[in-house]
Amino acid sequence: MNEPRRASIVGTGLIGASVALALRGQGWIVSGTDTDESRADEALAAGVIDAIGLDADADLVVVAVPVSSVSVAASEALRVCPRATVTDVGSVKAPIVAAVGDARFVGGHPMAGSEQDGLKGADANLFNGATWVLTPTDETDTSRYAALRAAISSIGADVVELAPARHDALVALVSHVPHLTAATLMGIAASQAEEHSALLRLAAGGFRDMTRIAAGHPAIWPDICAENRDAILEGLDALTDALAAVRVAVADGDRGGLLERLEIARTARIGLPTGVAAVEALVDVRVPVLDRPGVLAEVTTLAADLDVNIFNLDMAHSVEGDRGVLIVTIDALASERVCEALTARGYKPSASPVGR
Amino acid sequence: MNEPRRASIVGTGLIGASVALALRGQGWIVSGTDTDESRADEALAAGVIDAIGLDADADLVVVAVPVSSVSVAASEALRVCPRATVTDVGSVKAPIVAAVGDARFVGGHPMAGSEQDGLKGADANLFNGATWVLTPTDETDTSRYAALRAAISSIGADVVELAPARHDALVALVSHVPHLTAATLMGIAASQAEEHSALLRLAAGGFRDMTRIAAGHPAIWPDICAENRDAILEGLDALTDALAAVRVAVADGDRGGLLERLEIARTARIGLPTGVAAVEALVDVRVPVLDRPGVLAEVTTLAADLDVNIFNLDMAHSVEGDRGVLIVTIDALASERVCEALTARGYKPSASPVGR
Repeated sequence: MNEPRRASIVGTGLIGASVALALRGQGWIVSGTDTDESRADEALAAGVIDAIGLDADADLVVVAVPVSSVSVAASEALRVCPRATVTDVGSVKAPIVAAVGDARFVGGHPMAGSEQDGLKGADANLFNGATWVLTPTDETDTSRYAALRAAISSIGADVVELAPARHDALVALVSHVPHLTAATLMGIAASQAEEHSALLRLAAGGFRDMTRIAAGHPAIWPDICAENRDAILEGLDALTDALAAVRVAVADGDRGGLLERLEIARTARIGLPTGVAAVEALVDVRVPVLDRPGVLAEVTTLAADLDVNIFNLDMAHSVEGDRGVLIVTIDALASERVCEALTARGYKPSASPVGR
Repeated sequence: MNEPRRASIVGTGLIGASVALALRGQGWIVSGTDTDESRADEALAAGVIDAIGLDADADLVVVAVPVSSVSVAASEALRVCPRATVTDVGSVKAPIVAAVGDARFVGGHPMAGSEQDGLKGADANLFNGATWVLTPTDETDTSRYAALRAAISSIGADVVELAPARHDALVALVSHVPHLTAATLMGIAASQAEEHSALLRLAAGGFRDMTRIAAGHPAIWPDICAENRDAILEGLDALTDALAAVRVAVADGDRGGLLERLEIARTARIGLPTGVAAVEALVDVRVPVLDRPGVLAEVTTLAADLDVNIFNLDMAHSVEGDRGVLIVTIDALASERVCEALTARGYKPSASPVGR
């Protein structure tokens, strides 16, 4: 029997505490620290960590602090824990990897989070099925990297390997620039709404979807914008250029050009990986329903009775009031029997490939 | 006892057929026409209209055809129906109102729709609680406008009065420009994804929400872009200008400026009207869930067992990652007992006022 492996977590917030729980579930002995000592105490009291502190015998240290503090914390961990492979969970990689610059350090970024901040959102299953980017470089110790990759796979995550700068460019495109754009659209509407109170009454579901992320806490964004500055600027320039081309198409009445752009976007959006299963195997079943107690329970219970997993669920209100369309995303193979069962109960379901 | 009022509907698609049903519910005699004669026949057979044709004695004609055909159809209706007030339901108003230019014509735009196209989505209650914009001008006959407004209120809609150009500017900001932007962001990501297959695996819930509308059928957009060209160009310019200011803030590392923009957007997004009644009395209960059969049924059945109506339901994939958080919108008065029941079953719910 091998000795249990030992890990330390620096920063016992949502992600750090979830990593701690997940590693302990795999038999690791896990200690933890936090700049806010009361948070480490809470994590210990809640059974999230075995001990407080940075373990000098640690095999693995996971640095789970805000991006602007990662490189200092990682360097400290490399010094205190001479045997450890050190990784982090920050959402920007190139500046951190360059600043730390050590064969024992590998940058990481789990694409996981929770609506609930801090310890109370911590969950050993948080990374189950999540994409977890690792950014090894030419300097990275190969056997350490293999062991890190195995540890992360062991807690259920799918490891994607990317060069640090490539990671940063990609998240700028699919996360940072979209976030700034959502906030910008919301800001423009808000400034107009001051003058025209009717404006926000005209904002329908599409606008709500587009701006939902703008409701998030802004505190993390100045750091992200600072750390991933260059990639975000490139992304903003790409967006501005593309919008300028759209403007030309609108100004010129270029119907074919507009249609082509929208068709490309539509095809891509429909093909977006759902993170749950092969997208070609999923269908949206649309079920007009009335808002009354029990209606959702009836539909979802019916799916459960048929042992059909619901991958996604959305309640589209045509507008307001007491009617809506329940959009239930399920495996295409189950579509027919779910629709039959719904029809038998008086619903009028219609099924279509996801996104159509 | 008064004679029943008479209406004609031009275009028996989803909106036209729903208006027909709603007016008949208020005692109107309703005839209808469609350029596709088989659609009018179907509407008659389905009991949606009382007769086929444009009624020369009509008090009201509702033109429910694609925006590019409205002005011709409305002018025809004004000619054939000399007593009628004529209105339309197109999503662009100024060019139509200018082209028709008649004291008996008032532009309109119900903010209503359905996931189901055509006659099969038709519903007498479609406009119940919906915002319905009317765009009278200085030339509009005042008593006709008052009667039209009363007729629309009688089928449950909330009338919002706007000048035609103002309507167009506002929908450009909250619908047309956001739609083009979503498609543009999706297009950029798609073009990068061809080279970097990992990209779309990094696209998390926020990106999915932002680009959802890009999955819609593009066919209606060239018309909308042509009809609302000027307002859309202004909206695109406003967006480009605002993005340029964001770019400066990112480039300069202006943390305060970024935070301020994001805070303004957050406050505005949280304050966005939800479209369900008495917003102050509703809470969002967030319940982290795993994707497995039965989980949604358990949550919704629990609400049904407590006789709690679910006003809205959303499966949010948090900022990053693809684990689900079920967001269940319920009456604030029921919040405590729903959360208690969920906690008793091992869930970790948290409740907050709608939108927070």
